[in-house]
Amino acid sequence: MYQSAGRTAASVTRPGSALERKEEVRLTGDIETALQTIFDADTGIYRTRGFQRRVGFGQRPALIHIDLANAWTRPGHAFSCDGMDVIIPAVQQLNAAGRAKSIPIVYTTTAYAVTNGPNTDMGLWHHKIPVEQLQLGSPEVAIDERIAPLAGEQVIVKKRASAFHGTYLSGYLKAHGVDTVIITGVTMAGCVRHTTEDAIAEGFRPIIVREAVGDRVAGVVEWNLFDIDAKFGDVEPLERVLTYLAEIAPFQEQPAAVGASAG
Amino acid sequence: MYQSAGRTAASVTRPGSALERKEEVRLTGDIETALQTIFDADTGIYRTRGFQRRVGFGQRPALIHIDLANAWTRPGHAFSCDGMDVIIPAVQQLNAAGRAKSIPIVYTTTAYAVTNGPNTDMGLWHHKIPVEQLQLGSPEVAIDERIAPLAGEQVIVKKRASAFHGTYLSGYLKAHGVDTVIITGVTMAGCVRHTTEDAIAEGFRPIIVREAVGDRVAGVVEWNLFDIDAKFGDVEPLERVLTYLAEIAPFQEQPAAVGASAG
Amino acid sequence: MYQSAGRTAASVTRPGSALERKEEVRLTGDIETALQTIFDADTGIYRTRGFQRRVGFGQRPALIHIDLANAWTRPGHAFSCDGMDVIIPAVQQLNAAGRAKSIPIVYTTTAYAVTNGPNTDMGLWHHKIPVEQLQLGSPEVAIDERIAPLAGEQVIVKKRASAFHGTYLSGYLKAHGVDTVIITGVTMAGCVRHTTEDAIAEGFRPIIVREAVGDRVAGVVEWNLFDIDAKFGDVEPLERVLTYLAEIAPFQEQPAAVGASAG
Amino acid sequence: MYQSAGRTAASVTRPGSALERKEEVRLTGDIETALQTIFDADTGIYRTRGFQRRVGFGQRPALIHIDLANAWTRPGHAFSCDGMDVIIPAVQQLNAAGRAKSIPIVYTTTAYAVTNGPNTDMGLWHHKIPVEQLQLGSPEVAIDERIAPLAGEQVIVKKRASAFHGTYLSGYLKAHGVDTVIITGVTMAGCVRHTTEDAIAEGFRPIIVREAVGDRVAGVVEWNLFDIDAKFGDVEPLERVLTYLAEIAPFQEQPAAVGASAG
Repeated sequence: MYQSAGRTAASVTRPGSALERKEEVRLTGDIETALQTIFDADTGIYRTRGFQRRVGFGQRPALIHIDLANAWTRPGHAFSCDGMDVIIPAVQQLNAAGRAKSIPIVYTTTAYAVTNGPNTDMGLWHHKIPVEQLQLGSPEVAIDERIAPLAGEQVIVKKRASAFHGTYLSGYLKAHGVDTVIITGVTMAGCVRHTTEDAIAEGFRPIIVREAVGDRVAGVVEWNLFDIDAKFGDVEPLERVLTYLAEIAPFQEQPAAVGASAG
Repeated sequence: MYQSAGRTAASVTRPGSALERKEEVRLTGDIETALQTIFDADTGIYRTRGFQRRVGFGQRPALIHIDLANAWTRPGHAFSCDGMDVIIPAVQQLNAAGRAKSIPIVYTTTAYAVTNGPNTDMGLWHHKIPVEQLQLGSPEVAIDERIAPLAGEQVIVKKRASAFHGTYLSGYLKAHGVDTVIITGVTMAGCVRHTTEDAIAEGFRPIIVREAVGDRVAGVVEWNLFDIDAKFGDVEPLERVLTYLAEIAPFQEQPAAVGASAG
Repeated sequence: MYQSAGRTAASVTRPGSALERKEEVRLTGDIETALQTIFDADTGIYRTRGFQRRVGFGQRPALIHIDLANAWTRPGHAFSCDGMDVIIPAVQQLNAAGRAKSIPIVYTTTAYAVTNGPNTDMGLWHHKIPVEQLQLGSPEVAIDERIAPLAGEQVIVKKRASAFHGTYLSGYLKAHGVDTVIITGVTMAGCVRHTTEDAIAEGFRPIIVREAVGDRVAGVVEWNLFDIDAKFGDVEPLERVLTYLAEIAPFQEQPAAVGASAG
Repeated sequence: MYQSAGRTAASVTRPGSALERKEEVRLTGDIETALQTIFDADTGIYRTRGFQRRVGFGQRPALIHIDLANAWTRPGHAFSCDGMDVIIPAVQQLNAAGRAKSIPIVYTTTAYAVTNGPNTDMGLWHHKIPVEQLQLGSPEVAIDERIAPLAGEQVIVKKRASAFHGTYLSGYLKAHGVDTVIITGVTMAGCVRHTTEDAIAEGFRPIIVREAVGDRVAGVVEWNLFDIDAKFGDVEPLERVLTYLAEIAPFQEQPAAVGASAG
């Protein structure tokens, strides 16, 4: 039985999180209660009408870590997010479990080669958010070393919110027969959400790990998880995802096709 | 100066809407206040950090009406949405203004040729929401006749949430030199949001018409507009969009290219 | 051992084909020999350098029939192609073999809702070829009834050359775990080639059925098959593809995922 | 009047080219004549039926140089191509002309982070061609220094044949209002062709510069240019493209949109 609403409400106050300490935006009990009231009412309608189904886990998962680079995981940057004390250890556990089964592990970062002038690869996005601060090759856009990619793991530089948009992610996953994407990272209201929407559109089962996603402003983790769980992917607790990874068969190259060259 | 939060709070209670009358989910003043408190706090952080910028209107807009087909616009269906008493007239006004300038007008609907078995074009989406109720060719998936497409306007049948995903929309708009997409329709937490995210990713300026978007559960219009306005597109009141359409030059075929065939 | 060159040369003169009878463009023995000389020389270089490998057949194929609609399969149209006396029976055999294993079968056609003015869905393509003659809903763009789709088979209306571009084909195939696309149809220099290039890019193994592809002008079948076999997909004789289809396991829905809803 | 066939035949023997000198594959006069005979016959059919139209040049071009990296432009590599004595100077002239007008200039290269094992980003392509020799970060995949990118010019690493597939190219070009892509590079039978097909599908006018494209085996430049000119883009001589670039207005950022933020 799905109970994201319950977990959600509990997590609205993460005592001691960077958000609360530094910027004094605290979701009081009244606000938590208000959000929970909406979620409960909406859930009633969704259930009656046949939404909020489970897409479930498939047989060949990959881990997709969205924008866990220093600009997002460390304090002091326009893109800094909260909750890394929980997110980073969760990702470490997922990586250990995934590596034990040799599943594909993909990290994304968002970075730009040209951050001004008519030739910029930011497209139009700098007209909404400060992506001009994400210079390709700078330490800020490197993956956080606490969860450093190993040799053989992919780091995809994306230009837009979705890890699929304008990248080789979909073709890469399909070529390896992946059917499930386990998604972590930030931000919930931006890149994680758009990635999840694209994932199911492309034909992958999206699993969002509850403890491993975050954002930089209050409330948005909760309402975006609520929307996603209703329509686009399953929001699951870390414990359940770890159990799943422990139980699957080791990832192997797709069975040799009939008539393929050795090379 | 952007004030979506103010407009948003006001719209949380739409007296007499289908939602409130029939399903008794009323957002009380306390809940409105709670959402507004979150939006205000988040806006403070976003502004400080350089988010919530304006992408603005370009020179060559198109109107994109998302899923304003009977399954969504009429009562009694799993996909029925609220607020059509406001949305339909807004779309009528936008169409009149757009047709006066001959801009491209695109309607989407979501429908499936095969709704069961291993050959279904639903992909994996029926594992989350009841898309098996959207049969291609049925009256339910036809565009609402109150806003019927005219000859020469496009009706795109999509299979996923985004109007761009798995459709010819992007190539169509690019070929005609469109730089701005004015988005209306439903649902805000699903297809409208994903379409908006894809639009800016593809290089179009997304404008979401505040009065012309809706959903079927409480709260989601408000928080999705908040997220979109912060990161992906500009949420604008109908009045401003109508003024813009009144002021632009009539849409004409792209200037004849050097050396092109007559045909 | 690959011998497309040999098969190719033999097929350059298809005695009695529409092309030769009606338009008097005959590839003489000298020209056949010339093409074969080039193919042999190029094959020498490709082999030395490690090209012309075999991608092979996977475990879950789908059949993709490109533009076998009346405008292409019947005489008298700007798009009419040759060789239907061979292509149609080959497709019939493939369909029988594929249906026996319940594999996904997809037909494409190319058709436009709006064939003039600034709102056309032809994009820019009518500036190169006469796509204004392909009206959506006309008998010309309907699939040839000799190979009529059955209920449960997909007919995809595309706007561009590739069956993947601007369509839901990739997401559809991925959602069903397809790993191999068996491609037939026309034209070899246009839609079949672009579809094949996209197929391997997306992560599917492309198999092009030698006897089941065609075109409307001389030579292009041969040189496009040569290029494709060198770089993008395997050109295989009908007999081998039929043997493969006879040997694979029946296509079933992907194994029930862990934790998925029943629906 | 288009006469690519004439130009094409002339170029079939490039005296002294690497191909002829080193690998002794010479297109004799008989073979040239044979190809020309086919092209002439096919042109007759295409013209009668309304193919081979001109898409023409638009108002805002970009230069797209395909895979002019050392593995392709220098001898001794599996991917080495011929004709660089003509191609490189042509690209230099195009760059000078394009930079004088500040148009976007994009270079692609093809390179892989992981070239073996189940995590490779080669997808399935190594089952057809030796892409395992294209290691990301190696000198072989760096752009040839004779045509070195300047600061502010984009270098896109692609994984597949098309410069559009799995890259941000389309969104980048659209965001800058580009309507025309001037294409150079290698190989004609692979990446240049696939890029051209995708370009018109996406809504850009493709112009292929006759003297600035090449390949590594005989004949394929000629027949691929023939196919492209018939259906997908205009093959134009360098001189005409240079004249066009001399005449266009300097490229400027898209006119400031109504209501956009300053940033």
